[in-house]
Amino acid sequence: MFFRISIPLILLLYHVSALWPIPRSLETGTTLLKLADGFDFKLNFDSPPEDLTNAIARAKDLLMTDNLQILVPDHGESNRGGLEDAKSLSGLTLALADNAPAIRPIATEVTDDLHARDESYTLIVPDNGSDAMLRANSSLGLFRGLTTFGQLWYDLDGTTYTTMAPFTVSNDSPAYPYRGLHLDTSRNFFPVSDIKGTLDGMSWVKMSTFHWHVTDSQSWPLGIAEFLELAEKARTRQEKRSVQTTYKKLLLTQLREEIDNPGHTASIAFSHPEHVACFEGTGDVVLEPPLGQLRLASEATLNFTLDVLTAVASKLPSKFFHTGGDELNQPCYNQDQQTQDELERSGRSLEDAIGDWVDATHDRLRSIGKTPIVWEEMVLEHNITLKNDTVALVWISSDHAASVAAKNVRIVHAPLDHFYLAYTFNPLANISSSQEYLILGGQQLLWTEQSGPENLDPIMWPRAASSAEVFWTGPTLPDGSERVAAIAGRNKMAKTEVLGRIHDLRARLAARGIRAINIQPKYCQLRPERCLNE
Amino acid sequence: MFFRISIPLILLLYHVSALWPIPRSLETGTTLLKLADGFDFKLNFDSPPEDLTNAIARAKDLLMTDNLQILVPDHGESNRGGLEDAKSLSGLTLALADNAPAIRPIATEVTDDLHARDESYTLIVPDNGSDAMLRANSSLGLFRGLTTFGQLWYDLDGTTYTTMAPFTVSNDSPAYPYRGLHLDTSRNFFPVSDIKGTLDGMSWVKMSTFHWHVTDSQSWPLGIAEFLELAEKARTRQEKRSVQTTYKKLLLTQLREEIDNPGHTASIAFSHPEHVACFEGTGDVVLEPPLGQLRLASEATLNFTLDVLTAVASKLPSKFFHTGGDELNQPCYNQDQQTQDELERSGRSLEDAIGDWVDATHDRLRSIGKTPIVWEEMVLEHNITLKNDTVALVWISSDHAASVAAKNVRIVHAPLDHFYLAYTFNPLANISSSQEYLILGGQQLLWTEQSGPENLDPIMWPRAASSAEVFWTGPTLPDGSERVAAIAGRNKMAKTEVLGRIHDLRARLAARGIRAINIQPKYCQLRPERCLNE
Repeated sequence: MFFRISIPLILLLYHVSALWPIPRSLETGTTLLKLADGFDFKLNFDSPPEDLTNAIARAKDLLMTDNLQILVPDHGESNRGGLEDAKSLSGLTLALADNAPAIRPIATEVTDDLHARDESYTLIVPDNGSDAMLRANSSLGLFRGLTTFGQLWYDLDGTTYTTMAPFTVSNDSPAYPYRGLHLDTSRNFFPVSDIKGTLDGMSWVKMSTFHWHVTDSQSWPLGIAEFLELAEKARTRQEKRSVQTTYKKLLLTQLREEIDNPGHTASIAFSHPEHVACFEGTGDVVLEPPLGQLRLASEATLNFTLDVLTAVASKLPSKFFHTGGDELNQPCYNQDQQTQDELERSGRSLEDAIGDWVDATHDRLRSIGKTPIVWEEMVLEHNITLKNDTVALVWISSDHAASVAAKNVRIVHAPLDHFYLAYTFNPLANISSSQEYLILGGQQLLWTEQSGPENLDPIMWPRAASSAEVFWTGPTLPDGSERVAAIAGRNKMAKTEVLGRIHDLRARLAARGIRAINIQPKYCQLRPERCLNE
Repeated sequence: MFFRISIPLILLLYHVSALWPIPRSLETGTTLLKLADGFDFKLNFDSPPEDLTNAIARAKDLLMTDNLQILVPDHGESNRGGLEDAKSLSGLTLALADNAPAIRPIATEVTDDLHARDESYTLIVPDNGSDAMLRANSSLGLFRGLTTFGQLWYDLDGTTYTTMAPFTVSNDSPAYPYRGLHLDTSRNFFPVSDIKGTLDGMSWVKMSTFHWHVTDSQSWPLGIAEFLELAEKARTRQEKRSVQTTYKKLLLTQLREEIDNPGHTASIAFSHPEHVACFEGTGDVVLEPPLGQLRLASEATLNFTLDVLTAVASKLPSKFFHTGGDELNQPCYNQDQQTQDELERSGRSLEDAIGDWVDATHDRLRSIGKTPIVWEEMVLEHNITLKNDTVALVWISSDHAASVAAKNVRIVHAPLDHFYLAYTFNPLANISSSQEYLILGGQQLLWTEQSGPENLDPIMWPRAASSAEVFWTGPTLPDGSERVAAIAGRNKMAKTEVLGRIHDLRARLAARGIRAINIQPKYCQLRPERCLNE
């Protein structure tokens, strides 16, 4: 029996729907189906890229190791009888769609232009035991479909089963291409294993972009062959081992590295004090210790910075590169005699010099094929005309998106005021329909002044999953209802459905080794309908 | 060279003083001293209790495994030359003071009446290589002194050393006997290893009392031989394995178990629905799902509860037992026809029945040698006269302590409004000198609606250390200055000293496997003087 999810049926489904983000189209049944002992993935095309082959092997491994009991009070006991007679699924066939372009590695596809990437897929799991089918135009689409397939399965004493057959996702694809997560590795140290674990978590909720805020005033943990002194002098001992591995491939996710400048650069003073103003500044230059930012009126400092940016950006496959630009401290430059002299000599105001600096650094990046990303201050607080390929991260307030859009600058949402479980965030609030094309997506941020490996996962998960769904699923749930209105209103079934799904996601992340936190007591995780916050 | 810590010298010492809580008297030098290869603990008395022997073995193990580098920018490199010529310490002698009573196990001493316990110790570490001396009147005092000794040591490439010799703590003892930590294991599940780890952390900051909020409405994870059905019906699958181990000895720390009643008892309805009112209640009985509390006007329910309390409390060595009493929901009883009938039949008001319930449960506990502890509502919100052995936990607001003291009830501080890094908390605020004897101490609390093993440590540590020092060290720092005034004021050296010490403690807890979080960037941990919040 097939039916389309609709409000009256959510009540039946909420305990068994474990998909996150929820596909944009979805048809599910209620037939039990189990994985055959010899279950395997099959390909209907030759020569798959190595990273796709690895992703398939990983998906198979997770099917065997998740061992997740269904989150209902009896943990699935009532399915035991039905499972004895249930059909078995022997295989999932991965197929390329007719007219699909030649298959490329996932790691290549994630470096395509944002709007050129194709993450769409169709997944059909019949209830009669015949093979399931996953079809896409790309490796990336097959990878997204594998992720959805992996969320269907529960364990009952060694039997791996779903309660949702037959199951069809037709041409699911993300509402926004940029679905990001930001991690600051300068304020406190993170071992490579934490970064890899975070990338895993991202892939399991179909996030697309890792924004690595790799350096800041507190440390410079990034080893650059041409400028090894930066890391040698401004990293802590813990970081010694990680520098070597910085450029190891971070597969399957788009990596955007950020070298924040000209502010947030005091760590450069440990190796190049000549380039840093107000390192020993006082009074109103204090933002967060240590003080100091690049002497932006100095030609030598600009040239040094251009060379550093080139050395870093040229080694990265991503088309985008983040140049920071937040929280520039003007009193610092007022206190710095060298900067004052250089401004006077060149006949420029500080704002002129900021504009020249941004133009020069961005043009250098463009010359090596990169598109610059900045924090919103570069658009809203300085008198600069950014070229219209630039992307701005709106972080100070969600209210600022409209002002950035008014300047015709493309936007990634990353607002502080919605950082915490922002499920009701509307990416198009205050954006006119003619400006919608400017919205590329959004991302979660973690600054690490008060965190480290000890609380990375507990802060990030399942919180970040919230924006993963906002920017994948977009404004409309698969039943056609408005996502934000359904949750913000008094629709108990819609709230129960989301709450149950995020509890289920948390359990699956935990089963895969991510220390995602409980967001309600276990009692409520088993019975979300009893624990709605009205 | 010997000197007493005073303000001008703190500047020299803040990077090297890693003691937490800081002893109430302290003299330190600046001579380097290293542990000899064959370093060992020695006893000058016979037949040590087994748990003291185990504690000594553990202390020795930590000396070998902490491997903590000193938290300064060069990580101790500048000590390398001096360490070549430094004297070596071959042993620490544990001695009983003249006139000390016969030695008893730590686990026995922690069950003594609060004010009868002797945790005092004297510790002398000479700088000339002769043996160090730890002297106390009790096993518990020796255990506290071992903890202080263990905080003196850093590692430099395999050399274990202190920078503080000669070092003398004279007759250190806690300002308050009750230095507690509270953990709720009903809202979400914790494995025994988490509880043991928490007890370890407590012992490393000299906390004395573990308040185990073991049951609540959401689950009843406590196995009681006489009432196995309670846990069988109201625990989650995860908890199955832990029930067996509930009564395994929790050594070295005073254990206070709480069976919260008559509220917070809905989980009893899974096995004994006849004793629970408003399990399916509606409207203003909703506090937190599931609903339901004990039918306090029912004689059968009271007798059942007395038997449960007896079964639990009689198996525990502690002199105290916590009977809860918080957040009693009166509309629940108004909705429950059985309770209304029973009140009418006995001619009692609800408040009368609450008073009778509390008298009966407390008197039963007294009859088996226990002293009752309650939440503050039992003192402030109900018309009950508690017997004057009762202890109240003041949790809703620190302002309520004075009202509880006015009723002549002993107090443990556990205020919500000071839960977060409460270093400036003053236990005697608004308490007259004639009431000071009522203040037994204070405790940190963790409710677990939104936590579990994933974030237990990150929420608890190093936060809980703050109250550990408030209640051990009391109002006066070893240099004679006022603790709260020194930190709340503009005394940069005092602030730097505390900040450096808590960073150091965090590093030591992390070295011992507790996932304590960074509270500032590593840059600041190495240079606390640059990162004071003014």
